[in-house]
Amino acid sequence: MNESLLLTIAVLGGTGKEGKGLAYRWAKAGYRVLIGSRASAKAVTAASEIIQLLEGSSSVVGTTNLEAAQQAEIVVLTVPYAAHRETLESVKEALQGKLLVDVTVPLVPPKLTRVQMPPAGSAAQEAKEIVGEDVEVVAAFQNVSFKYLLGEEDLDSDVLVTGTSKKARAEVLTLVEAAGLTGWDAGPIENSVVVEGLASVLININKQYGSKHAGIKITGVTRNS
Amino acid sequence: MNESLLLTIAVLGGTGKEGKGLAYRWAKAGYRVLIGSRASAKAVTAASEIIQLLEGSSSVVGTTNLEAAQQAEIVVLTVPYAAHRETLESVKEALQGKLLVDVTVPLVPPKLTRVQMPPAGSAAQEAKEIVGEDVEVVAAFQNVSFKYLLGEEDLDSDVLVTGTSKKARAEVLTLVEAAGLTGWDAGPIENSVVVEGLASVLININKQYGSKHAGIKITGVTRNS
Repeated sequence: MNESLLLTIAVLGGTGKEGKGLAYRWAKAGYRVLIGSRASAKAVTAASEIIQLLEGSSSVVGTTNLEAAQQAEIVVLTVPYAAHRETLESVKEALQGKLLVDVTVPLVPPKLTRVQMPPAGSAAQEAKEIVGEDVEVVAAFQNVSFKYLLGEEDLDSDVLVTGTSKKARAEVLTLVEAAGLTGWDAGPIENSVVVEGLASVLININKQYGSKHAGIKITGVTRNS
Repeated sequence: MNESLLLTIAVLGGTGKEGKGLAYRWAKAGYRVLIGSRASAKAVTAASEIIQLLEGSSSVVGTTNLEAAQQAEIVVLTVPYAAHRETLESVKEALQGKLLVDVTVPLVPPKLTRVQMPPAGSAAQEAKEIVGEDVEVVAAFQNVSFKYLLGEEDLDSDVLVTGTSKKARAEVLTLVEAAGLTGWDAGPIENSVVVEGLASVLININKQYGSKHAGIKITGVTRNS
């Protein structure tokens, strides 16, 4: 746990359900977590909610998206797609030399069951275009329910991790494990279209089969760890 | 089984491993199967191999791709991506008013672990552009190992079915079941990028984790059937 105690993770848009759930899991695992929001007051409230859930001893602080990005080594983006570009542009300078984890699914209402990717190919590739060469970008956690993360229900779904380098993907796979999930190296950032697009496929399956939390598991692989 | 006895399925490129495996499964389930190939002699050989595997009582005939497409109600395309456009153009007229099932994965060597889709968005959408309005196009079976289909190993992988209408997807879900697999309605044809792209993700997982047949299962859904 020595490494995790040293690392600070910023969760931008961390007042949303998904971000709050991830922040909770990582704080529980010993990471220092900064909740970011456009308005710091909302982030402070979210941080105190998480501290309450964890009954004390954790390090969770609420602040603005920009300050959170500035103070963290790893920056996780959990805003709705409509705020994706604007949020990234507002923290771009603070991200240089760091690792960005993009949780965004580019759903375009009202056709949530139809894959509709931005011109860059996926939200993660769009993020890479915005933040530039000196930021590693990894896509992950798109299909994890916040209800699971907050411990209210079981989840039997894996996390596929795509990104700009194998090293960056490995770092995020450590965060996946720390959150109590099973992760898989799903290849280069061009493969993000598959993982982000799976959200629409799973929404369609929920609609067709009357389920609420369709997920996926990788099969046929024996893991040594 | 009354319906299946009436239906004829053409498997274009059915001399390849994948096509032969599917033809075997459907013949076993009682469908009349036409194996198509550029050269009918190769298709005749493949058909007799399948008849031998089934020990007789089935209806499997080898012929050219064009004749197979002309005589079938459902046409399944199992050629390598390099032959995708050419094969479709050669049978386009014969496909009008029918159902086309596209099994193609648009892998571009040597980067098999990287998703690289054609300008249409996916092989299935490219097929739709080629064959036109009067052909329903469904994408399925991209990630099923022929070794499983020929009964040589176990498979714990589901089939995601995308396509131009819910009715067409339902027809193909019947074929998935007839082949002994579990299928899921994965939504409109625009979602084919996810299912075709999964091939690269699974190839990457096989490479990173030393496995041979990584697959996926849908979780969190209770099926009534």
